[in-house]
Amino acid sequence: MVVEIVTTGTELLLGQIMNTNAPFLSEKLNELGFDVLYHSTVGDNRVRMTQVFNNALERSDIIITSGGLGPTQGDITKEVTANLLNRPLFLHEESVAHMTDLLAKRNRSMTESNLRQAMIPKGALVLRNENGTAPGVIIEHNNKIIIHLPGPPHELKSMFEQAVVPYLKSHFNSQGAIVSRVLHTYGIGESSLEDKIKGFILSQSNPTIALLARQGEIIVRLTAKGASKNEAQTLIDTLEKQLRQYIADYIWGLDNDTLEANIGEILTKKQLTVALAESCTGGLVTSRITDISGSSDYLIGSIVCYTNRIKTDFVDVTPQIITKLGAVSQETACLMAAGIRKKFAASIGLGITGIAGPTGATPTKPVGTVFIAIDGPAGIQCQHHTFNGQRTDIKYRISQTALHMLRQYTLSL
Amino acid sequence: MVVEIVTTGTELLLGQIMNTNAPFLSEKLNELGFDVLYHSTVGDNRVRMTQVFNNALERSDIIITSGGLGPTQGDITKEVTANLLNRPLFLHEESVAHMTDLLAKRNRSMTESNLRQAMIPKGALVLRNENGTAPGVIIEHNNKIIIHLPGPPHELKSMFEQAVVPYLKSHFNSQGAIVSRVLHTYGIGESSLEDKIKGFILSQSNPTIALLARQGEIIVRLTAKGASKNEAQTLIDTLEKQLRQYIADYIWGLDNDTLEANIGEILTKKQLTVALAESCTGGLVTSRITDISGSSDYLIGSIVCYTNRIKTDFVDVTPQIITKLGAVSQETACLMAAGIRKKFAASIGLGITGIAGPTGATPTKPVGTVFIAIDGPAGIQCQHHTFNGQRTDIKYRISQTALHMLRQYTLSL
Repeated sequence: MVVEIVTTGTELLLGQIMNTNAPFLSEKLNELGFDVLYHSTVGDNRVRMTQVFNNALERSDIIITSGGLGPTQGDITKEVTANLLNRPLFLHEESVAHMTDLLAKRNRSMTESNLRQAMIPKGALVLRNENGTAPGVIIEHNNKIIIHLPGPPHELKSMFEQAVVPYLKSHFNSQGAIVSRVLHTYGIGESSLEDKIKGFILSQSNPTIALLARQGEIIVRLTAKGASKNEAQTLIDTLEKQLRQYIADYIWGLDNDTLEANIGEILTKKQLTVALAESCTGGLVTSRITDISGSSDYLIGSIVCYTNRIKTDFVDVTPQIITKLGAVSQETACLMAAGIRKKFAASIGLGITGIAGPTGATPTKPVGTVFIAIDGPAGIQCQHHTFNGQRTDIKYRISQTALHMLRQYTLSL
Repeated sequence: MVVEIVTTGTELLLGQIMNTNAPFLSEKLNELGFDVLYHSTVGDNRVRMTQVFNNALERSDIIITSGGLGPTQGDITKEVTANLLNRPLFLHEESVAHMTDLLAKRNRSMTESNLRQAMIPKGALVLRNENGTAPGVIIEHNNKIIIHLPGPPHELKSMFEQAVVPYLKSHFNSQGAIVSRVLHTYGIGESSLEDKIKGFILSQSNPTIALLARQGEIIVRLTAKGASKNEAQTLIDTLEKQLRQYIADYIWGLDNDTLEANIGEILTKKQLTVALAESCTGGLVTSRITDISGSSDYLIGSIVCYTNRIKTDFVDVTPQIITKLGAVSQETACLMAAGIRKKFAASIGLGITGIAGPTGATPTKPVGTVFIAIDGPAGIQCQHHTFNGQRTDIKYRISQTALHMLRQYTLSL
């Protein structure tokens, strides 16, 4: 089955936004065993969009589009398809009701333009949008399938996972199967990791092995093709076991595991609580911990002590230490961790102090310097790191390291 | 002049890497006044690449490709063009010399495969690669122009700036210029915004007006074409002034403005400081404020009071209020704002309490319910909202609303 992904929107052609929908859809479709052979992008223009859709219908079996389902005059995707396939648009009452509900919740009322979004080509399957007002559609036409998804990535992603994947699976159960597995690593660089498993990378063709640098980590992706899902799964299991003989120490999770959820499970299981004193990360680590539903069971809270006064008055760092050793020092980090643990009566306290940049560096403490301390039942630990990058990259890398320290510490308890 | 960008490479179709070349080229070409009307992506396959090039030659005047100029068997871009245009490949001695030099510097020797890179279609202009071994080419053919650039982004970028821009300027010195401007809005939905300026959207062709939904906001993009940059700028200025008569109240920033930076400027200018008590947002609002370098001048700090005990012991919310009205209530939010303001001795205190979900809802307080309070020199204010979406979306929307409230409040002082 040849798939073509058509992303629509003039902003893509102006280079104003990164096209994240095409790689997302491609990756997922490849995992399902489909051959994505073309990506096309076209602006919000009837004539050109019609030509691009027509061209895609000629060379591909399944066309998945993103964008142009919204309420504005520039949102023309469904109209173009309706004209091209000669399928009149009609008002889909269920979508109107869903939209009315959603708008009411946001204290907004239905407008004339909003109704445009509920216009559906005749005979189409309607995909409810759980995260927005514009429904998606699937149209089966002369042995071809056209799927229109909304442009905002979070709407597209959830609609794809929840509606399109089950649809494709039920219609094409003989694609064979491609299974892929992600091994999340920590504490090793890309080239060292590659050196450890180079023999496998060079000799393997099924499964394939790819090393990819993601924000704050290196992942190893194994992809196997088999006649059945089971067959592919077995291939992956075997390879994973072999790889673990060389890199087991660095693997902390699989597939969609997140560090935040993983930590949550450990803390819950061990009935531990945590409190944080964050300086340079400004609350980012706490915010990541609270991205997990149920985190109120193990997160007591935190103090973002962005000024020295808050560090001394609320987290028990002594002014002498700050004067003598600096707010960015191992001693300050340790006092922050111990102080917040005691103040908030948590099992574990985490203290983070550093220089996120681009200003604030000193001759001995460059931008990216950070001290991260943990205080808990197993005593106090502190790590010193120096990270590179933009301010927000540095903040993220520090948060990643702090969460890994927390994970290791709690695992050891 | 219609331009089509064709990015080649199977890795793009597998979704393994982000396509950064297409947006880079698009942005630069638009600035130069060219109309980029299509993006296409095709894998390293002779038949399909030939079809895609052919299609591009039919609908576009200039075709710029990236990728497939390297030494491996999968690098076929120039061969495909040579066959398509009937222009035999020959060995370009100058490129061989450049490559030999470069490889020597890297302590590598010339291999047979490397010579592939120096094969150039007859009659082509050769573009030296300052950052790699593969030269680029420009081929003029029957009033069309084909430009092949290397795939690695840093090689492509410098070759484009150093060789392609001067080439295009000298060949098309009357392209004029395209200027675009983004108006950031807040407090109005996409369709209501469109209703207010529908007349302009329908009647305008230069500048064009596009409404786009971004995470937590709607932006209005104006794009003008003029004989010169000045002329285009004037067209935009005029239209912006006209639009402001209808939507000025909702516009809070232009182009690359961020809410965080904007708030930072206001607080700095007015010499105000801020402290936060965050519950459901878990530190996200504070973290966003600290994304700005220099935020330590106006951010005192915050307490993430994720449990009731921290709310009562550290932020002066009374247990009675929590028992009687709930931790998620207007009263709690107001006490949090006033409490943190006083405790941290800040000019302004912000209190946020809500239900990020998916659990925790009550019959009267659904998931997404939030109360945001501000206490400061102008007294206390509280807003009540209900947001939709996933847990992290809800957190983000709350943070966006809280920052807008903070902006409005400080502007009024």
